[in-house]
Amino acid sequence: MVLALALGARGLGRVWPNPAVGCVVVAAGRIIGRGWTADGGRSHAETMALKQAGEAARGATAYVTLEPCAHHGKTPPCAETLVNAGVARVVTALEDPDPRVAGRGHAILRDAGITVTTGVMQSEALRAHAGFLKRVQEDRPMITLKLASSFDGRIATATGESQWITGPEARRMVHLQRARHDAVMVGGGTARADDPTLTVRDLGISRQPVRIIASRNLDLPLSGNLARTAGVVPLWLCHGEGADPALIDAWSGMGATLIPCAIRQGLLDPASILNALGQAGLTRVFVEGGGAFAASLLRAGLVDELIGFTAGIALGAEGLPSLGPLGLQRLALAPRFELVEQRQLGADIMHNWRKT
Amino acid sequence: MVLALALGARGLGRVWPNPAVGCVVVAAGRIIGRGWTADGGRSHAETMALKQAGEAARGATAYVTLEPCAHHGKTPPCAETLVNAGVARVVTALEDPDPRVAGRGHAILRDAGITVTTGVMQSEALRAHAGFLKRVQEDRPMITLKLASSFDGRIATATGESQWITGPEARRMVHLQRARHDAVMVGGGTARADDPTLTVRDLGISRQPVRIIASRNLDLPLSGNLARTAGVVPLWLCHGEGADPALIDAWSGMGATLIPCAIRQGLLDPASILNALGQAGLTRVFVEGGGAFAASLLRAGLVDELIGFTAGIALGAEGLPSLGPLGLQRLALAPRFELVEQRQLGADIMHNWRKT
Repeated sequence: MVLALALGARGLGRVWPNPAVGCVVVAAGRIIGRGWTADGGRSHAETMALKQAGEAARGATAYVTLEPCAHHGKTPPCAETLVNAGVARVVTALEDPDPRVAGRGHAILRDAGITVTTGVMQSEALRAHAGFLKRVQEDRPMITLKLASSFDGRIATATGESQWITGPEARRMVHLQRARHDAVMVGGGTARADDPTLTVRDLGISRQPVRIIASRNLDLPLSGNLARTAGVVPLWLCHGEGADPALIDAWSGMGATLIPCAIRQGLLDPASILNALGQAGLTRVFVEGGGAFAASLLRAGLVDELIGFTAGIALGAEGLPSLGPLGLQRLALAPRFELVEQRQLGADIMHNWRKT
Repeated sequence: MVLALALGARGLGRVWPNPAVGCVVVAAGRIIGRGWTADGGRSHAETMALKQAGEAARGATAYVTLEPCAHHGKTPPCAETLVNAGVARVVTALEDPDPRVAGRGHAILRDAGITVTTGVMQSEALRAHAGFLKRVQEDRPMITLKLASSFDGRIATATGESQWITGPEARRMVHLQRARHDAVMVGGGTARADDPTLTVRDLGISRQPVRIIASRNLDLPLSGNLARTAGVVPLWLCHGEGADPALIDAWSGMGATLIPCAIRQGLLDPASILNALGQAGLTRVFVEGGGAFAASLLRAGLVDELIGFTAGIALGAEGLPSLGPLGLQRLALAPRFELVEQRQLGADIMHNWRKT
């Protein structure tokens, strides 16, 4: 199951709206098949692993990180594929809460006389499939928030200078994290200030994550890097109902996907944005700021994981804060996260946290 | 020498104005004496180690983390003690830049026919004796700045609530760090806002570090924790020339030591404060804030080491910043530090940096 989870992780960021599943087929103590969800969400992990195993799969054991699917989609259900392959035993980590599966995959296997064990390494699988589970159970993608700052929590000088606070190793890790998410998202202020491209560079990936900008009025530069690349790499713009129709047409004409979202208290409602993204099939979204947009997500309790990069540099109180105001009345109400991992990355430190 | 350095470190925070030296005497591959600078700065490490070794020191090798002293003070010079003990060889890590020594310790040994090797583990010794070296060479103590904050760099909510952002393990480490420094220092704003005691608690130490408050006008609570304990644990108040004489008398009467310092651009001049502290014999000072005082030290380039504690909590832009304004014109001018160590401490992370 450890190997199956590692194989499944290869698909992170590349298989939405499907889960990134891993599968290992074992016969007589030997691994005879390995599979993971392919780019775009199919083939499924079980299909790939069973194909590798071939006839040797008869009587073998299949380890799968999620309950095999039970519904006919563009591929036949994996539960039936496992039955047809003649495996004797299936070990899974988790029941799939997708209403089209929800125990029916396990039932198909059991009805065919296959021994089924579930819940093996369940907590690891819950984390591995966190994005998919959020989409199916809460109709929104999982949100990872990146905060890269000086050790006093600043992301730029008072004049907006921010290149570079962290070193090349940390910046490379940011690209790796982009690649492991279905989409990269920033607020409109960051899109205006930094003119980012938001693509994954220098990692040789074949499929770029979707770029998403949350901008109530669509007041984004029409001749910047995002506009220039809108026809090449997916660009989704979440905007308020009142955005200028001429701007909607202009961005649409450049190839961007326009997503109208609700306004709440004068700002784009983060829950409305995330619901729209969940409906569109996204399971994992990497948010890179800015401070105001990050604060709106934190205030709404919508940040699931945090990745902090801290550089050995001091910028002082007049620098731009990594987070906007949270409006906390008391310390006890502050959003808390628990440490998952921390390590040195070049001259900087990286620390990962998840919601408690 | 590794052992000698570890022994020497026992004296950190307890031996000022003297250096925290370690000494190991070895004969025929066996350790026959171990010493370190005793509380208050004497006896010296060599005396203790040679006393332990006794007659067996004849023909032995002594490893010392700093050049043995050459001057008659309240104790006879250690170089002569080593000669009298009859050691055959002395290995040191560093020449002592104290003008009363400065090579004369080594010369006394060589003149007596002892083989002397110097510079062994020199870079480690430079770090171990950093505080003493600062005092002797730059007339000021070494400064370690502590920053304990939320992951967005805030030390309290907008209403000043700060207990507790970090957990008990981090707070215990702060007490350990206080104990490893000669003095603990904060700015007047923190003394007013937090009413701290600034003592080392729950570590069973016999000698408390000096408490120092930098307060231009001495406008500190006359009935707070510092005033209450001024007669019991040393309290030094660095103030401007124009402080109210009645307040000077009041604090003096309570047992505090008053240290007049220069004013520059309307603020206490940090260089003047540090010179006064160096003159008073301090070698290692642990600064615990607040943001304005920490910024004044950073602006003046007077922070040698940084210890950051980061908690998994978000406080938002309206929270109190860990650092005040630095007045940076460009990112390239920002003070930079290099990572020394980072690790998990309870629910928080600790990261240590030193000036590049």
